Amino acid sequence: MPLLSGIKTEAQETEELRALTAKGGFLGLAQINLVAGDIEHNALKISEYIKYAESINLDMVIFPELSLMGYPIMDTIDRHPFLVEENVKWLKGLAEITGKTAAIVGFVEPREKFAEGKRFYNSLAILRNGKIEGIVRKSLLPNYSEFNDYRYMEPSPAVGIQPAETLGNFSSDKVIQCSPLYNLNGVNYGITVCEDLWNNKDFFEKNLYSKDPVSELKKAGADVIINCSASPTRARKEQLKHNMLAFTAFSQKIPIVYVNQVGAIDNISFDGSSRGVNKYGDLFARAKSFEEDFIVLNPVTATGYIEPITRGLEKSLNEQKIFTLEYESDLERTYKTIIQGIKDYFAKCGLKRAVLGLSGGLDSSVCAVLLADALGCENVFGVSMPSKLTSDESKSDAKTLAQNLGINFAEASIKPMVDTTTECLNGLFKDIETKWNDRYLKSFTPDNIQARSRAMYLWGISNEFPSCIPIATSDKSELYMGYATVNGDMSGGFAPIADVPKTKLFALASWMNLNRASKNTIPKSVIEKKPGAELAIDPNTGKPLNAEDALMPYEFLDEIIWRIENKNESYKDLYNDTFVYELKNIVPKKQKIDWLNKFYNRMSKALYKWSILPPSVIVESRSINKADYNQPITSGRINYKGHSKAEIRNILQL
Amino acid sequence: MPLLSGIKTEAQETEELRALTAKGGFLGLAQINLVAGDIEHNALKISEYIKYAESINLDMVIFPELSLMGYPIMDTIDRHPFLVEENVKWLKGLAEITGKTAAIVGFVEPREKFAEGKRFYNSLAILRNGKIEGIVRKSLLPNYSEFNDYRYMEPSPAVGIQPAETLGNFSSDKVIQCSPLYNLNGVNYGITVCEDLWNNKDFFEKNLYSKDPVSELKKAGADVIINCSASPTRARKEQLKHNMLAFTAFSQKIPIVYVNQVGAIDNISFDGSSRGVNKYGDLFARAKSFEEDFIVLNPVTATGYIEPITRGLEKSLNEQKIFTLEYESDLERTYKTIIQGIKDYFAKCGLKRAVLGLSGGLDSSVCAVLLADALGCENVFGVSMPSKLTSDESKSDAKTLAQNLGINFAEASIKPMVDTTTECLNGLFKDIETKWNDRYLKSFTPDNIQARSRAMYLWGISNEFPSCIPIATSDKSELYMGYATVNGDMSGGFAPIADVPKTKLFALASWMNLNRASKNTIPKSVIEKKPGAELAIDPNTGKPLNAEDALMPYEFLDEIIWRIENKNESYKDLYNDTFVYELKNIVPKKQKIDWLNKFYNRMSKALYKWSILPPSVIVESRSINKADYNQPITSGRINYKGHSKAEIRNILQL
Repeated sequence: MPLLSGIKTEAQETEELRALTAKGGFLGLAQINLVAGDIEHNALKISEYIKYAESINLDMVIFPELSLMGYPIMDTIDRHPFLVEENVKWLKGLAEITGKTAAIVGFVEPREKFAEGKRFYNSLAILRNGKIEGIVRKSLLPNYSEFNDYRYMEPSPAVGIQPAETLGNFSSDKVIQCSPLYNLNGVNYGITVCEDLWNNKDFFEKNLYSKDPVSELKKAGADVIINCSASPTRARKEQLKHNMLAFTAFSQKIPIVYVNQVGAIDNISFDGSSRGVNKYGDLFARAKSFEEDFIVLNPVTATGYIEPITRGLEKSLNEQKIFTLEYESDLERTYKTIIQGIKDYFAKCGLKRAVLGLSGGLDSSVCAVLLADALGCENVFGVSMPSKLTSDESKSDAKTLAQNLGINFAEASIKPMVDTTTECLNGLFKDIETKWNDRYLKSFTPDNIQARSRAMYLWGISNEFPSCIPIATSDKSELYMGYATVNGDMSGGFAPIADVPKTKLFALASWMNLNRASKNTIPKSVIEKKPGAELAIDPNTGKPLNAEDALMPYEFLDEIIWRIENKNESYKDLYNDTFVYELKNIVPKKQKIDWLNKFYNRMSKALYKWSILPPSVIVESRSINKADYNQPITSGRINYKGHSKAEIRNILQL
Repeated sequence: MPLLSGIKTEAQETEELRALTAKGGFLGLAQINLVAGDIEHNALKISEYIKYAESINLDMVIFPELSLMGYPIMDTIDRHPFLVEENVKWLKGLAEITGKTAAIVGFVEPREKFAEGKRFYNSLAILRNGKIEGIVRKSLLPNYSEFNDYRYMEPSPAVGIQPAETLGNFSSDKVIQCSPLYNLNGVNYGITVCEDLWNNKDFFEKNLYSKDPVSELKKAGADVIINCSASPTRARKEQLKHNMLAFTAFSQKIPIVYVNQVGAIDNISFDGSSRGVNKYGDLFARAKSFEEDFIVLNPVTATGYIEPITRGLEKSLNEQKIFTLEYESDLERTYKTIIQGIKDYFAKCGLKRAVLGLSGGLDSSVCAVLLADALGCENVFGVSMPSKLTSDESKSDAKTLAQNLGINFAEASIKPMVDTTTECLNGLFKDIETKWNDRYLKSFTPDNIQARSRAMYLWGISNEFPSCIPIATSDKSELYMGYATVNGDMSGGFAPIADVPKTKLFALASWMNLNRASKNTIPKSVIEKKPGAELAIDPNTGKPLNAEDALMPYEFLDEIIWRIENKNESYKDLYNDTFVYELKNIVPKKQKIDWLNKFYNRMSKALYKWSILPPSVIVESRSINKADYNQPITSGRINYKGHSKAEIRNILQL
């Protein structure tokens, strides 16, 4: 039965839904986009869906984790705890709206002032008939990668529902002996929050927690598991989620209804794709990906409608553990993750416009397309800022791209700024070298003056025109190498591709040329030419220095990054393992060692640059985004090669 | 008895110590400065102290928490787990060095690959007679402010010591029933790690954890509590620590030996001040603050030597809860915290020199003094970069300061850069306003061009001269207000005063003028004049805009910040409470509301700037440093005024 999806006001659709839901047992999944801390905004959105769900006679309407506060709210609630009181006030207001349709709403619950442990619970309230009917609290609190729940929250001492009177007054010595299930119209619901679903003892090789709330609720007699989530998307995570849900439903013989947040909060992008899985592990309903959506389903009869998913489900879990340059199956998801990241960052910050330098190279071209698609081409300004090293091809590629894309375009020479700055600096340097007489014979100053002059233009525009920010176009491979200029190309109000490795960017450019409504927007020559910053001349060739000559082949570099991030490989592992690049090219051992040494040396010096990276979007399974990964800058002296036992004894003079 | 302190090779001191320690029961506290992840460096330092301790016949030598790895190591060990194997190899090497003197060394302990929970323990090994004699694991894992132990570590399922064979193979089902105490030469030691000491049920109004390892160890018959710590210094934390240690020792009737890390790792500064407290709660030994030190004490006889502490112990705990502009008692500690922060950041990153703009204003003057004291005046270059708005007084103050301080000094005009940039930008703006026709009538572009031209000089110098970085001179009050230019004065390789509020900076400047060996280094006029960026003209006065006119009185601003950070006050609390400023000045209600609104508006827009703040030093009890506090940038729409219940019902149309 093709159940209609999307919240639509058309009378016909509403009628059709009413006819269906009259049979009972139907739930609405409100997959909404939240603003962190903007409780009024979130509450109004929730109230709209509660009213709609009531109007179509649903048994229940379900919202994502922390739907009143937005997830993640991070340290904000610790410093501004009035926000927690505030979200409870709004929760009580929302309860008054409800009628016979129950609503499950996520909120931050205060704990008693002097109760042992953290200050808050990550809770859900079940609202119905004008009242709060019960509270469910998150038991398993993730505290890795982009998750920090345990910084603020206390794990629940009880699985499932507790009476409403425990609100704000709950701790391990106040657990009330009652059924953990919520019974509504003859169905027993076991209600969980996000991570509570992710600790199946048979599915995972290793468990983080001792409890498994899902099996406890099943044992207590649950007919259906409901899970309210804020689960970020990352490369290839969809496969894991799909397999885990199917396995858990099938092995516990229980349908699962999963409601996920959609939209981005800062660096973290949630893909929605809320769904229902029947007790055989089969998907029977799914909401849209990367869009707000409202779907209606019946978990007992497995009635629902499946929206097509954003691709990313093609690979098996085992295949995920092998590096590949075949990015095809990831690209649609990568594209949508970044588009959503840009859109929501701008909208939630009250921004509208972006300005970026168009060099005619890959990074800025890909950024321009993503920005135009996210913000509308009228809101993007591309500025070509050639120097004497910029080739005619690069200049014409920049212009062609802007024309193809329909974004605003201007040309501005950096020559006057570079000349004046160079002259000023040289004057000062002469003064300084009378005191510090070890001036570099060959420095990066001329390269950096060019990059910083361009940034001077872009930041100037953002100061001069309302709601506009400059874009940092650095990519992940180059950030790993510190191959980006501070206050130059790595500065900006947002960095769309900071978590996309270069080889994937090439694939993404080709994918966009093929799959966007308008084809071949990025000139072929942009994709075919070797990347280079066109900031300096290679003394060997007399031509602008090629990035791969300055660094190493991107295919090799990106595999190092992938292996470290995804398999936590050490220097020795990298040395011993065979890279995809090595299957296609002869790499002498000395060459491999040189590249590995260069990688670790440059990475160690890049830690500072990572620490001042502008807000960006997490795309890959692991990243160097501050929201996800932090390493002390002063750890640059780590010896990644390690020592043998004999070497250690020798150094210790044993 | 004046026990000698400091590790000195003088034969006389060693002889004196030998005579003393021959009586037995003497412990050495090795208060060392660690480099995160540089295991070889840390191990060599540890081995040196182990050998020395053996040579003077100590019973035991004790090192800080995670002394092999450095604390905090943050996400590094999750991504590069080979470091954990590596630190175990070094630990085994160190064991071989030990003779009859036991050594307690901190390390990251791996857990079994598939054991439930996190991957590591935060452990101590007791080394003696060439072997590992036992392992102690941290039970209480802090996860707030600058602490993130629970991201990586599993809490220990056992308090006190477990046999050596549990190393790397320990979990709750492998706890061995044995005495939790380490008996050495007739004394029973109860050994703990940092936070394990911070959960006394009677001292704290509220406890974070249910266990109290100290009372468990006392009950098991401990004669002495040993605590290996990495406890950062922050304003007024010394008082808390002093009171907590005294209370715990006295109430449990047990002496405590506390060994703390010294030195800074990135933003976090550890003050050392390792100590012994007798069972009456009296301090009987204390190592130096903010310096490496090695002290010898006997906890049973309460024998030791007390080094003078860096001031900061004058206020009672109750006094800490009240805002005051009387900073006097904090200033020595503030000064030393920042000096250590600069010194260690530079040394651990392989840097040597700093370059900064000298405006003749307070912020840059204070930074110059701190840098000169931390790095040596020959390693600091002050550049005066006046514009047409710079007063003659400012120019002469900058020069006088540099002369007084003996740092290198140069003058460089920004006029050519400002003129060229302005011309270039105006050309481009004309082009852009044909497409975006809402150009600001009055923008901050001219102000920002000046700040960015100065940064162009400073970053140029850092690119041209080895081991040199530019300094960001932004202070805490102005960062809260977003009153700093991106790619301008807020950019830099390090930000020494980013956690010091303006009113405290004034006090610090006066304090340094009085207390440094060379007096009155900062010209009086710098401290007496009203702060202002000298970037724009105030249309009302025709003179450069005064910062307090653009913002609000610093005394008022700094009290808002303090109340929010330390008392988590809400908008309503701030409105209702009487500020120190209000006791001295008449502030009409409308004025107060205007300032509060301005504060929240500006702070909400400053969140982006906080996210790209260069590495700095945490100084105050609470901060906006990323290592300590994170708030989503997209939470800028938070309504800090909140709503009444009636307003909420109205908005929800109830």
